[in-house]
Amino acid sequence: MTFMKRRSFLTATAAAASASIAAPAFAQSEPKLNWRLVSAYPKSLDVIFNTATMLADHVRVLTNGKFNIQVFAAGELVPPFQSADAAAAGTVEMAYMPPQYNWGKDPTWALGSSIPFGLNTRQTNAWLYYGGGNDLLNDFYQQHGLYGLPCGNTSAQMGGWFRKEINAVEDLKGLKLRVGGYVGKVLEKLGAVPQAIPAGEIYTSLERGTIDAAEWIGPYDDEKLGLYKVAPYYYYPGWWEGQSLIYTFVNAGKWKELPPVYQQAVRVACEAVNGNVVAHYDHENPQAIRRLVANGAKLRLFKKEVLDACWNASNEVAAELSSGNANFKKIYDSQVSFRRDAYLWAQIAEAGHDNYMMSLQREGKL
Amino acid sequence: MTFMKRRSFLTATAAAASASIAAPAFAQSEPKLNWRLVSAYPKSLDVIFNTATMLADHVRVLTNGKFNIQVFAAGELVPPFQSADAAAAGTVEMAYMPPQYNWGKDPTWALGSSIPFGLNTRQTNAWLYYGGGNDLLNDFYQQHGLYGLPCGNTSAQMGGWFRKEINAVEDLKGLKLRVGGYVGKVLEKLGAVPQAIPAGEIYTSLERGTIDAAEWIGPYDDEKLGLYKVAPYYYYPGWWEGQSLIYTFVNAGKWKELPPVYQQAVRVACEAVNGNVVAHYDHENPQAIRRLVANGAKLRLFKKEVLDACWNASNEVAAELSSGNANFKKIYDSQVSFRRDAYLWAQIAEAGHDNYMMSLQREGKL
Repeated sequence: MTFMKRRSFLTATAAAASASIAAPAFAQSEPKLNWRLVSAYPKSLDVIFNTATMLADHVRVLTNGKFNIQVFAAGELVPPFQSADAAAAGTVEMAYMPPQYNWGKDPTWALGSSIPFGLNTRQTNAWLYYGGGNDLLNDFYQQHGLYGLPCGNTSAQMGGWFRKEINAVEDLKGLKLRVGGYVGKVLEKLGAVPQAIPAGEIYTSLERGTIDAAEWIGPYDDEKLGLYKVAPYYYYPGWWEGQSLIYTFVNAGKWKELPPVYQQAVRVACEAVNGNVVAHYDHENPQAIRRLVANGAKLRLFKKEVLDACWNASNEVAAELSSGNANFKKIYDSQVSFRRDAYLWAQIAEAGHDNYMMSLQREGKL
Repeated sequence: MTFMKRRSFLTATAAAASASIAAPAFAQSEPKLNWRLVSAYPKSLDVIFNTATMLADHVRVLTNGKFNIQVFAAGELVPPFQSADAAAAGTVEMAYMPPQYNWGKDPTWALGSSIPFGLNTRQTNAWLYYGGGNDLLNDFYQQHGLYGLPCGNTSAQMGGWFRKEINAVEDLKGLKLRVGGYVGKVLEKLGAVPQAIPAGEIYTSLERGTIDAAEWIGPYDDEKLGLYKVAPYYYYPGWWEGQSLIYTFVNAGKWKELPPVYQQAVRVACEAVNGNVVAHYDHENPQAIRRLVANGAKLRLFKKEVLDACWNASNEVAAELSSGNANFKKIYDSQVSFRRDAYLWAQIAEAGHDNYMMSLQREGKL
């Protein structure tokens, strides 16, 4: 795809400059702006790709057409994993990316996406907006020339597609699993062999037996890859992504230059989009899981023995990552401290209600 | 509290009128506006009172100070239960109110808040934004001269404070319970006697034994009433409010007159606030439940036998309300249809994850 070079600095249109004679403060604060955003997602992941489009639409309408954000899909301008880097460098003004894509540079980046056995979606928002989480993460992003805004969540993910059942911890030994980053480190402790494979090659890798299992996202997105045909055991929960947060990153210098009214447009739009994406997945996933099971997917719950081993391994990895990495330790400790009482409260009104409703579903009464 | 009369119609400031000579379209669409919003909540319910303040703040900043919404607490301009009526009549432009406060006029209003054994918070958002729910509700609100925007949720509520334990369905017989509307009808079927008592009188009514039990909201709000001292059994779940949605209502005529850029400011701000309030409660409730239990509250889960009886009674009431009320039937059926697969999916990734995390909490491992 081609694109035109656009001015990425603050520019006032002729109309605004003219109006400024009559009302200078007004015109100064609402310049015509054209920004570019690179998404780390392809258009085929329509829900999380459209998140950035929704953000851009909101901002455009909120600013009466004056602040335009042009959205580019993964790879159109820069490779997906370099999205945040491109915003930090000023190549573009904005990036839409799960922070964990930068895991290789510093494991602290993973904490802006999820930790194994971490908070769920709602708890993450509580930690971000009221528990100081977003501020802590931004102290880190600031060190890398970025300002970050929480802007979407896949919610709890599935554990992925397996060619064979996992009946015991030993079954993880030697298992070639398409999974990366933080959880890869955890699974290595249990003898699994994490594999880095692009999305487009997962199907054939499973079909040929080059790998034994692959994790992706959740029913709606997974369905498109058709993995149930080659690896029918669909495990849950995705204990490494009880939620998976996505950030909109803005070049730190550009963010500071942005008029307050535009900053607020981006802030409020991101907050709206952050919840809207979850609602979108919550609308699509129930239908997708029905179709997947009808097509042959076999749902399997990870056994407690397996989860316990993964929990222990996760704590070992977290301790290793915390040692000698002050940024990681500070943010991780904050999440874990919030997690304690969050899951105490979660058991009462919410789980009390949901558990009864789910029992009605199993009894065929809904 | 006193207040000045303000112009509630579209007015352009001198500055905007002056600027319009240079850029007419621009100035025409961003007039100076002063609106009034009546909240159905007192300031003491700080989380849900501040919701409307947050909405007003967002809109003011988004419109560069041109669209001002002045927020009045319950009773300052109109009695809380007349908030939406005041907006419909044009006495004020906006109201912030749980739709169920209008239950007495038509039970359909309750459906914009919650139904017994209904959707949870996330499912409600999925139904509203992607399942056609908000459009269906607005077809109804439109008949009453209002445009409604989802704007906050208490999330799953508690079942309330009881002087004695409820060990069997029979214990509900003759029970004088401070509860109203839809759930009052359901509990009447089981022999309970719903009581309408203002919040300020709940404590003394329980202390004197005038009533046997009272429901309010959740730990953070309930704590302020101190009910644990006079009715220590704190039951859950609040099966009649697995979530409880609050709407911002706008006078339908005023909404239509609003420039699109201001409509969008209100829309996006409401969507942002809708999620933010849940995060706020999710931050406060875990701490509040700890304090309540430390102060003597005794947590009790409603027994399955009791829930089953309430479930059956709820379905009887819904059938009665649906018969002869096309509005009720249409919206109720849509919610219930969405509920079926929502709780199927909820059991998999989300509950799979949360259940394991809650087991770690009970084992003291978090």
